[in-house]
Amino acid sequence: MRTPRIVIVGAGFGGLQTAQSLANSGADVCLIDRNNYHTFVPLLYQVATSQLEPEYIAYPIRRILRRFSGKRQKHKPKTRFLWAEMQRIDFSAQVVETDRCAIAYDFLVLATGSKTQYLGVTGASEYAFPMRTLEEAIKLRNQILTCLELANQESDRVIRQQLLTFTIVGGGATGVEIAGALMEMLRGKFRRDYPRLDLQQVRLILVQSGDRLLSELPKKLGVYTYNRLSQLGVEIYLQTRVSQVTPESVHLQNNEVIPTATVIWTAGLEANFPQTSAEISTAKKEKILVHPTLQLLEQPNVYAIGDLAYIEQNKPLAGVAPEALQQGVTVARNIQQQLRGKPAKPFSYFNKGRLAIIGCYSGVGKIGNFAFTGFLAWVMWLGVHLVYLPGYRSRLLVLLSWLYTYLLGDRAVRLILPI
Amino acid sequence: MRTPRIVIVGAGFGGLQTAQSLANSGADVCLIDRNNYHTFVPLLYQVATSQLEPEYIAYPIRRILRRFSGKRQKHKPKTRFLWAEMQRIDFSAQVVETDRCAIAYDFLVLATGSKTQYLGVTGASEYAFPMRTLEEAIKLRNQILTCLELANQESDRVIRQQLLTFTIVGGGATGVEIAGALMEMLRGKFRRDYPRLDLQQVRLILVQSGDRLLSELPKKLGVYTYNRLSQLGVEIYLQTRVSQVTPESVHLQNNEVIPTATVIWTAGLEANFPQTSAEISTAKKEKILVHPTLQLLEQPNVYAIGDLAYIEQNKPLAGVAPEALQQGVTVARNIQQQLRGKPAKPFSYFNKGRLAIIGCYSGVGKIGNFAFTGFLAWVMWLGVHLVYLPGYRSRLLVLLSWLYTYLLGDRAVRLILPI
Repeated sequence: MRTPRIVIVGAGFGGLQTAQSLANSGADVCLIDRNNYHTFVPLLYQVATSQLEPEYIAYPIRRILRRFSGKRQKHKPKTRFLWAEMQRIDFSAQVVETDRCAIAYDFLVLATGSKTQYLGVTGASEYAFPMRTLEEAIKLRNQILTCLELANQESDRVIRQQLLTFTIVGGGATGVEIAGALMEMLRGKFRRDYPRLDLQQVRLILVQSGDRLLSELPKKLGVYTYNRLSQLGVEIYLQTRVSQVTPESVHLQNNEVIPTATVIWTAGLEANFPQTSAEISTAKKEKILVHPTLQLLEQPNVYAIGDLAYIEQNKPLAGVAPEALQQGVTVARNIQQQLRGKPAKPFSYFNKGRLAIIGCYSGVGKIGNFAFTGFLAWVMWLGVHLVYLPGYRSRLLVLLSWLYTYLLGDRAVRLILPI
Repeated sequence: MRTPRIVIVGAGFGGLQTAQSLANSGADVCLIDRNNYHTFVPLLYQVATSQLEPEYIAYPIRRILRRFSGKRQKHKPKTRFLWAEMQRIDFSAQVVETDRCAIAYDFLVLATGSKTQYLGVTGASEYAFPMRTLEEAIKLRNQILTCLELANQESDRVIRQQLLTFTIVGGGATGVEIAGALMEMLRGKFRRDYPRLDLQQVRLILVQSGDRLLSELPKKLGVYTYNRLSQLGVEIYLQTRVSQVTPESVHLQNNEVIPTATVIWTAGLEANFPQTSAEISTAKKEKILVHPTLQLLEQPNVYAIGDLAYIEQNKPLAGVAPEALQQGVTVARNIQQQLRGKPAKPFSYFNKGRLAIIGCYSGVGKIGNFAFTGFLAWVMWLGVHLVYLPGYRSRLLVLLSWLYTYLLGDRAVRLILPI
């Protein structure tokens, strides 16, 4: 029998896990990504707030694949990496077309994740700063540092206040985490760098459309987060929507205009939907509707996982890393079932819990029915992210950076490097 | 008496040293740079060859200035930083004009360094990769990694060979150091990342116009370097000049054409000469002619140091960091002499020696009349650069990276990040 060819598109959590679970299957696996690195997305906001260097949370894909070829394994792994961007899928020819070449597949796993959705707000895609990719996190870091430098030079009080006003749109985990980290950065030892600038003038505004923060977690945790961020000095606007973003301001739907040089957009996501030769069923936000086995409704040899897939387990999944990781394992197992002529099995999500960090020494968490706040959640958050980070080198460097940030209250990374 | 205003333009080795030496003089010091960081130029080539992360060798200027304000010092230091690019100097008004604002001075220290000179070679400024700034080093790293990825995908043998051919123009310390590091990178454990690519096909060509490498050091060291690089597999063309650079090739003056996707330019430098309201005397390569006291011939309250200044001490200075550092100390002392109504004193260079590294475990050095090669020079090079690197954090991170590179024969940093 010819060696089966499995193509995985996207080297995020789901795609990488699928590749790893298939490494010793004997199949010819090809992993495609438009970057030559895997981005550890949960720590992106720490790159944006000058805590971590980009290289700490971006791991070269080839090095990850190299690790799959341990000495104890029986089969020589056949995982290849192709640095390319997917353009289109031809289901009838069973070919993935990329900007570099076309790849034939017997099984296809789509794990292209999500991208920022601006919810139709005028000016948002032009002037707001999204934070979904490493490049975007670096651009946001440059913007924050540039605003401080320019404010330091500015003699006009109104322009200075505008430069020192940062607005975050979206009160989910990313919005909350960046709000806490940014406030601590601007009020910590960092201010010794700008002795002529009164960083008490910094305004940090968090705009949330719903009636509480962290709406996916129990109400108690949202209230705790609200109080904690308020203590840090964050101004929180609940039940407020943004109607327009300009280079100098953000307009709210209640007609209030906030002069602000920086609008950080964490409000919406939609699936990175691929171009296809035949129509496929989708749910809201361009997500692909899949069977409980994660197979596409129309294509039994094509799977979709992670943020790209729509699947209900009592309620829709939340789009977090553990879901994608577990789906990667399921897909690898199902493909091997199919290769043996057996039916694919349904995916079942085991929810280990959720954690979010608010700032130094505080966080919120939910494990099973147990919701908790404070130092314990903070420590657990750090520990979990350290364990899941790929590679010992990254773990060591991130740990050193955290000691630096949290013990000294300072920020290490401060280059304004055009990108 | 009004507090004297001293403006320093450029935060390289010379400018920073001047600022540090003046920190407790009581004067109002303003340091201007177009970047918000100091670049530790001698280690740039290690960024380009994926050994070090950019942040390790780029130190935030505000953090350096913060360190000047130790607790034991009597005067509260008055060193300010201005993130701006100098546009023009008006000597009669005593004002430095920048892209952001104009700054008045009583004394001015010019330390704007040098930039790449392409010696009139057609296509060099468009297609060759210089390596004088952090941005350029990152671009070169992206280029090297991109060539490997593309070669890995390429089925055409001729194009693949072109992608795997790297040409370095210039056989000075930078050219030699990057040649050794690049060869070891491409022949080391790194090749495990490209199991389908025969990295023995890599060609690394070093083109040098003179009749030996490292022409500023004793002949014996140049010969040792030639042999060592040849052993590593570098093809060295002596007494050869480049006549043209294209995106696909480099043309030599002997009419040979080498198909190569990457040309690294380390051949020429010229001073970053400022625009001025009145003419000033210059020497070759746009360097400013200065008195032995480092004062401009025409402007007794303006100094020039480092790569920008032309001064002979028996023979012209070589343009290395220790010269700029020592000149910074002299300028600070001379300005204080002038403030006290006393005459400025001439600069005298104390040559501590020169070191260059060729690759893992080998280097060359000259201290006084003692020229030496091999492991000792290599260890000394590492030690000296570690000591001079600003900040304990950078030192620790660079040391860890070196252990990683030299003990494991691997490269840690491999992001292709558009810049």
